[in-house]
Amino acid sequence: MIRRIDRIAIEMPPPSEPDPAGAAAVQELMGGRFGEMSTFLNYTFQSFNFRNRQGARPFYDLIANIAGEEFGHIELVAVAINTMLTGATPATNGGTRKAPLAAVKDVGNPHHFLAGGQGALPQNSQGRPWNGDYVFSSGDLVEDLTHNFFLETGARNNKLKVYEMVEHPAARALTGYLLVRGGVHQVAYARALERLTGADLMKLFPSPRIPTEKIPECKPHIERGDHLRLYRFSPTDYLELAAVFNGPHPETGEDLVVIDDPPEGAPPHDLPSQPAVFAPGYAPEEIAEIAEKLRERAGMSKDPSGEVANGRKSAAKPRRTTRKATAGSRK
Amino acid sequence: MIRRIDRIAIEMPPPSEPDPAGAAAVQELMGGRFGEMSTFLNYTFQSFNFRNRQGARPFYDLIANIAGEEFGHIELVAVAINTMLTGATPATNGGTRKAPLAAVKDVGNPHHFLAGGQGALPQNSQGRPWNGDYVFSSGDLVEDLTHNFFLETGARNNKLKVYEMVEHPAARALTGYLLVRGGVHQVAYARALERLTGADLMKLFPSPRIPTEKIPECKPHIERGDHLRLYRFSPTDYLELAAVFNGPHPETGEDLVVIDDPPEGAPPHDLPSQPAVFAPGYAPEEIAEIAEKLRERAGMSKDPSGEVANGRKSAAKPRRTTRKATAGSRK
Amino acid sequence: MIRRIDRIAIEMPPPSEPDPAGAAAVQELMGGRFGEMSTFLNYTFQSFNFRNRQGARPFYDLIANIAGEEFGHIELVAVAINTMLTGATPATNGGTRKAPLAAVKDVGNPHHFLAGGQGALPQNSQGRPWNGDYVFSSGDLVEDLTHNFFLETGARNNKLKVYEMVEHPAARALTGYLLVRGGVHQVAYARALERLTGADLMKLFPSPRIPTEKIPECKPHIERGDHLRLYRFSPTDYLELAAVFNGPHPETGEDLVVIDDPPEGAPPHDLPSQPAVFAPGYAPEEIAEIAEKLRERAGMSKDPSGEVANGRKSAAKPRRTTRKATAGSRK
Amino acid sequence: MIRRIDRIAIEMPPPSEPDPAGAAAVQELMGGRFGEMSTFLNYTFQSFNFRNRQGARPFYDLIANIAGEEFGHIELVAVAINTMLTGATPATNGGTRKAPLAAVKDVGNPHHFLAGGQGALPQNSQGRPWNGDYVFSSGDLVEDLTHNFFLETGARNNKLKVYEMVEHPAARALTGYLLVRGGVHQVAYARALERLTGADLMKLFPSPRIPTEKIPECKPHIERGDHLRLYRFSPTDYLELAAVFNGPHPETGEDLVVIDDPPEGAPPHDLPSQPAVFAPGYAPEEIAEIAEKLRERAGMSKDPSGEVANGRKSAAKPRRTTRKATAGSRK
Amino acid sequence: MIRRIDRIAIEMPPPSEPDPAGAAAVQELMGGRFGEMSTFLNYTFQSFNFRNRQGARPFYDLIANIAGEEFGHIELVAVAINTMLTGATPATNGGTRKAPLAAVKDVGNPHHFLAGGQGALPQNSQGRPWNGDYVFSSGDLVEDLTHNFFLETGARNNKLKVYEMVEHPAARALTGYLLVRGGVHQVAYARALERLTGADLMKLFPSPRIPTEKIPECKPHIERGDHLRLYRFSPTDYLELAAVFNGPHPETGEDLVVIDDPPEGAPPHDLPSQPAVFAPGYAPEEIAEIAEKLRERAGMSKDPSGEVANGRKSAAKPRRTTRKATAGSRK
Amino acid sequence: MIRRIDRIAIEMPPPSEPDPAGAAAVQELMGGRFGEMSTFLNYTFQSFNFRNRQGARPFYDLIANIAGEEFGHIELVAVAINTMLTGATPATNGGTRKAPLAAVKDVGNPHHFLAGGQGALPQNSQGRPWNGDYVFSSGDLVEDLTHNFFLETGARNNKLKVYEMVEHPAARALTGYLLVRGGVHQVAYARALERLTGADLMKLFPSPRIPTEKIPECKPHIERGDHLRLYRFSPTDYLELAAVFNGPHPETGEDLVVIDDPPEGAPPHDLPSQPAVFAPGYAPEEIAEIAEKLRERAGMSKDPSGEVANGRKSAAKPRRTTRKATAGSRK
Repeated sequence: MIRRIDRIAIEMPPPSEPDPAGAAAVQELMGGRFGEMSTFLNYTFQSFNFRNRQGARPFYDLIANIAGEEFGHIELVAVAINTMLTGATPATNGGTRKAPLAAVKDVGNPHHFLAGGQGALPQNSQGRPWNGDYVFSSGDLVEDLTHNFFLETGARNNKLKVYEMVEHPAARALTGYLLVRGGVHQVAYARALERLTGADLMKLFPSPRIPTEKIPECKPHIERGDHLRLYRFSPTDYLELAAVFNGPHPETGEDLVVIDDPPEGAPPHDLPSQPAVFAPGYAPEEIAEIAEKLRERAGMSKDPSGEVANGRKSAAKPRRTTRKATAGSRK
Repeated sequence: MIRRIDRIAIEMPPPSEPDPAGAAAVQELMGGRFGEMSTFLNYTFQSFNFRNRQGARPFYDLIANIAGEEFGHIELVAVAINTMLTGATPATNGGTRKAPLAAVKDVGNPHHFLAGGQGALPQNSQGRPWNGDYVFSSGDLVEDLTHNFFLETGARNNKLKVYEMVEHPAARALTGYLLVRGGVHQVAYARALERLTGADLMKLFPSPRIPTEKIPECKPHIERGDHLRLYRFSPTDYLELAAVFNGPHPETGEDLVVIDDPPEGAPPHDLPSQPAVFAPGYAPEEIAEIAEKLRERAGMSKDPSGEVANGRKSAAKPRRTTRKATAGSRK
Repeated sequence: MIRRIDRIAIEMPPPSEPDPAGAAAVQELMGGRFGEMSTFLNYTFQSFNFRNRQGARPFYDLIANIAGEEFGHIELVAVAINTMLTGATPATNGGTRKAPLAAVKDVGNPHHFLAGGQGALPQNSQGRPWNGDYVFSSGDLVEDLTHNFFLETGARNNKLKVYEMVEHPAARALTGYLLVRGGVHQVAYARALERLTGADLMKLFPSPRIPTEKIPECKPHIERGDHLRLYRFSPTDYLELAAVFNGPHPETGEDLVVIDDPPEGAPPHDLPSQPAVFAPGYAPEEIAEIAEKLRERAGMSKDPSGEVANGRKSAAKPRRTTRKATAGSRK
Repeated sequence: MIRRIDRIAIEMPPPSEPDPAGAAAVQELMGGRFGEMSTFLNYTFQSFNFRNRQGARPFYDLIANIAGEEFGHIELVAVAINTMLTGATPATNGGTRKAPLAAVKDVGNPHHFLAGGQGALPQNSQGRPWNGDYVFSSGDLVEDLTHNFFLETGARNNKLKVYEMVEHPAARALTGYLLVRGGVHQVAYARALERLTGADLMKLFPSPRIPTEKIPECKPHIERGDHLRLYRFSPTDYLELAAVFNGPHPETGEDLVVIDDPPEGAPPHDLPSQPAVFAPGYAPEEIAEIAEKLRERAGMSKDPSGEVANGRKSAAKPRRTTRKATAGSRK
Repeated sequence: MIRRIDRIAIEMPPPSEPDPAGAAAVQELMGGRFGEMSTFLNYTFQSFNFRNRQGARPFYDLIANIAGEEFGHIELVAVAINTMLTGATPATNGGTRKAPLAAVKDVGNPHHFLAGGQGALPQNSQGRPWNGDYVFSSGDLVEDLTHNFFLETGARNNKLKVYEMVEHPAARALTGYLLVRGGVHQVAYARALERLTGADLMKLFPSPRIPTEKIPECKPHIERGDHLRLYRFSPTDYLELAAVFNGPHPETGEDLVVIDDPPEGAPPHDLPSQPAVFAPGYAPEEIAEIAEKLRERAGMSKDPSGEVANGRKSAAKPRRTTRKATAGSRK
Repeated sequence: MIRRIDRIAIEMPPPSEPDPAGAAAVQELMGGRFGEMSTFLNYTFQSFNFRNRQGARPFYDLIANIAGEEFGHIELVAVAINTMLTGATPATNGGTRKAPLAAVKDVGNPHHFLAGGQGALPQNSQGRPWNGDYVFSSGDLVEDLTHNFFLETGARNNKLKVYEMVEHPAARALTGYLLVRGGVHQVAYARALERLTGADLMKLFPSPRIPTEKIPECKPHIERGDHLRLYRFSPTDYLELAAVFNGPHPETGEDLVVIDDPPEGAPPHDLPSQPAVFAPGYAPEEIAEIAEKLRERAGMSKDPSGEVANGRKSAAKPRRTTRKATAGSRK
């Protein structure tokens, strides 16, 4: 099971100049063969299917825990795409405009506008849907780890390419962060393979052979030490990953580190309505009115309770809403 | 972001008589158009893409939170499939056996054995991979909710059918639970639509028109009140779902309830190695030896730390492994 | 079985300024998940698979009959696309031109030119083929109707989006008409659900929440009353749809009406040859000569007999060509 | 546009011993690359996209008209599949049965039971969905005809193979008929090619080289002359196909014949409810009650009006239901 | 370019007891993600796309040459499948048999009989077609080699699984050989990675960790030394692969060897006609008569010239048929 | 089996002005339904699956041999695409450039840059992967030949269209050559059908009805006689194709000719590194240094041994590296 936290992994820039063509390219990091849906769901299925977990606990913990981080990565890719698409259509639904989507005809991924509400899709940069054939879960630990090392290598290549193609601040913030974190996962899987077989894979780094530390958008994360850290994405479990993830970093020689608490993250921007694509509706203000009434009727504060980067935080959080919490809840 | 908990939603039965043909059928609930990957990823993408969240907070919270529960459902489907596949091949890799997989030739999904290690796949009952076209995220709130109500309806149909087809205890435990929980989500989305539009959808229940309470495997969950409860799958967020999820249950008239804490769940069984398919390897005991050494080298207890249903819990949990937890960790 | 009529549902504008990028977008209404192939084939399969038709005759008749109308809609989408593509390549096959397709390189859907003869494809706006997974036919009447209501809702969204993106007169004539007719089908399925369950879905209209009557290209159809009418697309059958399709229109309160005769329609324009893509050949005049000779040899008028919007109707229709019509024909 | 007639092309046998494995095989004739969806949609798209129709009228009429017949073929394949699936699950929804679908676990196509209500699917014999790549519509008349001749050849092969594999009476009635009609279409396209190019393709027949007249289920159709006839599937149009479809049959030398009226066909059996798969519901009798009330309220006869093979025809058809048939109807 | 030789890599057993279910499983080695189409086309595309070949010649030569061998592997998989399918239908087309394919209904891959003539398909063990997403060609040499090592690892897993599942002599001969040759390619790519990066990957072998030498069907190939040899599949090129493929074998320590001449191979069995599926026709003897006449007319020997395992070799090969071999031929 | 020759079918132009949009269009000739992967793999599978080869030897030889030529065609399409993509990104990896791929954002196929290293893909002009459904191998000889004739007809159409769309010299050199060679294959399959059935298909030529001899890029090949020649792509086999491929050419009446030796071909250009996409690496010069050292260590010449169009041929080829590990193997 999971617990969901309404924060994203890092602070992301607010919407600026829209870049629908760039957003279409960034989709490769979402739904491409080496996108974050692939890393997330590969490790998730491998952890689901892991047999003899107690016997191989450090390896199970490693894979299961990295799966936990990857959810935050598909979330972050979505944030980047949504940010880049914001503003690509007129901000009002005024009756005079004739063809509010004409400007994006033959630009980028048409489903961003025709199927979705200027939102991320489970598709790659060609508009083809992610599919389950991208998941490899052989059950053979050495082989799954070999796959994972290769997957992270391919993912790093794709991130570098997207970095090179798309200059939008959201795309750059995204790829700068993912390159650092993906690098850590690449190391983790290589180290696990070393532990299991005795092979020394460290000389394969970096692959592709571009030093991440020279990329401006990677720098702050490296300076913070994020290239060395594996966070534990569980309040209670996956303790043994530290038995695998240790020793020197292959490129810098610094010690790898396990952090027991996950990163604090940041609240996301509340991206504005795009009424031309009916997101979240043709008349968002009506929805807001209804929401306010519902809160009142439920005895909550009149103001919304969620924390967002660009909004005031409601002064008083609504009181906990439990009515009959009983034996069902875990102590 | 998420936190992952190494427990599953309910206690599941241990492996018994294997049922590879049944496991192939249960895959529909994993990777079918109406499977749990679809519910999980539909609500996940809808929450990622939600615009003007503060304005529509109760609805955002509802969708985002249900996505959190759905992760636990794909996990549970995997548990059922893996349990049913356990034992379908000989338990030893003894040198005399000639064709340990011969008994499953032309039985069920061949990828359970040829591609995977007797493990769940992101495929449907026909062996076709789940794909991103199964995600609907229009950005239009009323439309997304209409979709979600339909999706849960189709999912309920599929769960009933799988219940009718597969008698293996793991499949029955799974479908009994999912029918109850899916029913709650069906109600939640219908109620949300009612709140937004004023329409009264309650007479559409149950759909398909089979009373869940007559299904033996549903009964304990209903008796516990799980047909009325929406759990909050977040330690901190999604408070406003209670502004939508309230009022009477359409079938029983009882009050719907929000539970602030997620269900306690249960530890999963540690499913045994299946060496014939190299899961987690041809010689799992070698991996176990390595694991033990790694723990020792990391200063952890010699015994594995994870909790599993069929194993002793290590007396002493390994100490927290943080070394340099600093600014990166959230207080 | 069907009878085919060589007329289209409404008068469509003749070719004007070509718009290949717009034609690529309009493909969403043909081969997209919510395109007309989906509505046509969903209702067609549901009618094929309908069990106990006599017991549920009004509902069978409704679905089977709407399927009949939808064929005319895929036809109309094709007309729009073909019209928009006309003229995108040079009209002559003169020997001097060097690269008659160069102007459409990287514009719109390349298959419009490389695979087809500037003609409609069973693909969506991304160039991906329509597929059978888009058909839902559970056999459960309430569930199929729930699906159909959702399908029409998604289709309405797509039509609005295409309207907003593409200004070509053919696209606008198409979407104006389809929005009105799709709205009727949306009402029909909601009403059928009401009849079966007692739920009142009328407050869900319109969805998306844009008033169709404000769209200029919808107006003439609404003024004619086409937003209230369900035509019977059969000379002999589907009489009982009137038992379902009645009562007030959810938005206007006017009475819904069943028309026993299908719409008269209009002859299509005979779109000109596009010799650069060999449609209907590199030298269409040779085909015309052969056709004339074949007619003469068969004792028909020298002139073609078909009726087209932009051509003279042959004065004398060729005589009926039956030779041995016997027991095989129905009285 | 089309008009739909609630009759099927030929009389089909009633349900007998169910054959779900056979039904899975027959799906090849529905959704396979050479199935009837392919013939129907190929000719339909080719007719939609036909340019310079007046110039090439006899050829346009031929293709457009055969498309009309092919709709009746997908209908007939569905009838066969639905007939073969009838009875594969228990006929009652009695509370004692534990696993009504257990008998069809790992038998045939699981979607016949899990996704559908024992009904036909737009899939092939492997359970893969039909897709738009199976449509060829180049716009080049000679090339499209070459394709169509090849398509009918492949379709004939598939029909023969299904005939050889499946002995169920419904499958045999289906393939016997389709072999004869497919043969006519094969001749029609070859003849059209001959007319356009002067080539003599008649020696290619039969292909595959099995004489249809020796197949018992083909005989009655051949004796009726159906191997020589092209029916006009339009009350008003496609007159010029007779300018192409004439001359001797390649195998028998008999004259080819155009019949101006379509075949009379026959009413389909009203296949019984299958409550185990909720088709048309868990309690079909409730739907029947509602239907009866709706008819009464609409001033119709209490009895259903549709004609089915196994039911009494309502003595008095309900009166025509038009209320405001006006300008919309064609004279 | 290639030259094709009408011999197969090894002697294969003649048809014996047919095993259509086994043949369906063996398809995984043809069209699966890790099948031989994948190895063949991955290396082929990587060689096509290789930039700066002169600069990286030893690596280019290695990849391009292994691609050459892989063609022989897809050929051998086809031989195995075709052999296993031989005899699954009656050997005669006698008029009395009623349903010659009835015995294979719901057995194995239905396309082996319905779509093909008991022949291999570009599909996997689930009947899903191979597709281009299985090709990885990033252009980055280190990354492509990492992929290739992983691909061969996955392929080895699949071969072992098929070996375990299918006991038919043809399947065993196939997998025995492919395991040995795949092992060599696995070593080759690991060695290439070592040469480029300095990493030592040898401890990863074997993976999966099953010693190939214990498999009876591998033994003869290992005794012949085939586990050490890379053959040069070119009469003129790819000389520099020897600069990469050298040093000790990771498991045995023996020296790796480059053989300048490709393996001699063996003639394939001429598999018999299967008239029930019209392969190569309903009346193969008629084709043979035509073939004989054509040879005579062309001045060739009356007997066929090809060499097959189960047939006499024509005493006198037909004379070379060149008529105007001129400048076009290479000296 | 095959032998691979490191030469391409014809001299191709060196890189010039890059044309990524054109390269995306040329992909249709690679991975489209009628692309060269389809011709290559159709004939390859048909030859693999050919039953009773001795009985039908001339036809087997024809199909098997043309498959051999088609490999050279996929190679040539790759050369064209790679040539057209060369230079689309900056030639240096200088640290100052910020977004070296920005210029190709939303241009052509994004996978040319994001997934690949500016190299050819097994995809069509829409970026969709080639798949095994494009292979037809019914086993019925007449039917397979009918298919092959149709396939070559569709391929010719596609080649003409690409010719018309793309003016880049590499695309024109490619299509000019393929049109001539495809025409020969079209004739070969038609002639084979004539030999088997007695039908006269020659009047179907040319199809599409454009005279190839008027296309400037076809002329040199026609003047050389390449429109009449079928080359034998085997040093030893496929002798009997000459029993089928003879008689007059359908368009010119000239004698068809079998050439016993394959075309000489030409060395390909060694396309330069594209460091912006890491092909063959971020620092290709490092790879070159390693390669040189490896050659030296293996006792080979210091210079690369391969022959390329734009490079000097190494004066002294390295000596043959014969059979049992001599100088070629590493000590």
